[in-house]
Amino acid sequence: MPKITPREFESIAKDRVPIVNYLGCSIEEIGEGTAKGRAVYREEFLRPGGTVAGPVLMALADFVMYAAVLSKIGRVELAVTTNLSINFLRRPSPNDVVAYASLIKLGKRLAVGEVDLYSDGEEELIAHVTCTYSIPPD
Amino acid sequence: MPKITPREFESIAKDRVPIVNYLGCSIEEIGEGTAKGRAVYREEFLRPGGTVAGPVLMALADFVMYAAVLSKIGRVELAVTTNLSINFLRRPSPNDVVAYASLIKLGKRLAVGEVDLYSDGEEELIAHVTCTYSIPPD
Amino acid sequence: MPKITPREFESIAKDRVPIVNYLGCSIEEIGEGTAKGRAVYREEFLRPGGTVAGPVLMALADFVMYAAVLSKIGRVELAVTTNLSINFLRRPSPNDVVAYASLIKLGKRLAVGEVDLYSDGEEELIAHVTCTYSIPPD
Amino acid sequence: MPKITPREFESIAKDRVPIVNYLGCSIEEIGEGTAKGRAVYREEFLRPGGTVAGPVLMALADFVMYAAVLSKIGRVELAVTTNLSINFLRRPSPNDVVAYASLIKLGKRLAVGEVDLYSDGEEELIAHVTCTYSIPPD
Repeated sequence: MPKITPREFESIAKDRVPIVNYLGCSIEEIGEGTAKGRAVYREEFLRPGGTVAGPVLMALADFVMYAAVLSKIGRVELAVTTNLSINFLRRPSPNDVVAYASLIKLGKRLAVGEVDLYSDGEEELIAHVTCTYSIPPD
Repeated sequence: MPKITPREFESIAKDRVPIVNYLGCSIEEIGEGTAKGRAVYREEFLRPGGTVAGPVLMALADFVMYAAVLSKIGRVELAVTTNLSINFLRRPSPNDVVAYASLIKLGKRLAVGEVDLYSDGEEELIAHVTCTYSIPPD
Repeated sequence: MPKITPREFESIAKDRVPIVNYLGCSIEEIGEGTAKGRAVYREEFLRPGGTVAGPVLMALADFVMYAAVLSKIGRVELAVTTNLSINFLRRPSPNDVVAYASLIKLGKRLAVGEVDLYSDGEEELIAHVTCTYSIPPD
Repeated sequence: MPKITPREFESIAKDRVPIVNYLGCSIEEIGEGTAKGRAVYREEFLRPGGTVAGPVLMALADFVMYAAVLSKIGRVELAVTTNLSINFLRRPSPNDVVAYASLIKLGKRLAVGEVDLYSDGEEELIAHVTCTYSIPPD
């Protein structure tokens, strides 16, 4: 069972990373080593051409990955991102962005995961992220 | 001479990437293939422990790199980030973040650069970014 | 249908990237936008502790990705890697390394893919790679 | 003072990473948190067009970074690369490759550095690497 629920995570997140909430990011599902999140579409964050701005995608990816990490280690607030690498693949539609994170390694000191990002309701990846979190000693 | 001034860039940015403006990012200097930017410290974007959130750093880095690219190719709005990789090195102080971008390659199709990020007034890097932009054909 | 067979690819590779052949890398399967390759275990490339050295993994990943790209665009020898990012996840066993590449984007100018690397016969990833190739204009 | 000399490093490397030696890589200078290395040009590693193959650059970068890490922490053989990200910027000449590594962070658990790679005697970067090493607990 995941060590944290979306609701518990949300309450951490409100305190911890207010910017992400501001950007309209939320967590919808948490599994064991996985999480699904969403950035609600907001006209004010568009780029010309009607696409969602890169920083929203990066913020969402980091956030969803954080939920996936906590799903395995519980409420360890001091886990921090050490590396995030994003490939932007296609222009997002003017639509919500949905992100799926899954861990590919959980060690004592480092967790590594991937995040796939989609425009809601579409099939092609708009961006792909790999992300490393550092886990503090007990 | 740079092909764009900070003022011209600012007017593009207001239209083009409103989110970055919202996050309090601005460009202070533009050279030939270089740019300096700043994210103004805002309490509402803090993380616990009083540090500036990762998404602000990523947004600022992307933005400053965009200015460095336009300094060489002029007002080509459709240049887009294809890859951004960030290493978070030290916790930022509760202070403005200052970022210095410089191009390490400018080809016909791709521009690659680095961004160094500091807490204002401090000497140690808080984050380091490499970033690739795709440049559209004429 | 893939635009190149493992045999055709092998003959390109012998000329084109002799180092990879030297390292014992070969391509076993090519699909549409996918490829499977192998680095044969050789005691002389071990690191202490009996694990396969990182450079062998990086060389294999780049090679398999190249096969996946050619599977879609055919024999375009001047496609070149522009970015490769690898996360080393677990120590490889003293055993062959098997790598699976798949494209996540194929544009006119850039191809992006992922490579998963395993010790032969084992289930856990030993390394994960994302890789970008630049495709020359026709 | 660096905690290891090029000669001491060479003797570790011969045992530890024979592949790198095979590829003709050696360390020429070690400073405090810095190192310079070289991959000797060998016709057999060429790619068509007379350029040095990518895997040689990646192997050299990883090797030089390892020397830079040991320059600060001494002979800790179990330090391992966790992430390496390379941008290939220009085609190398048919010539030795020279690489300069420098640490940008040395923590208790992670070391992060950059490596700049040049064709010997030329001024433009051929590749740029960022690299993270995990440092084992005492």
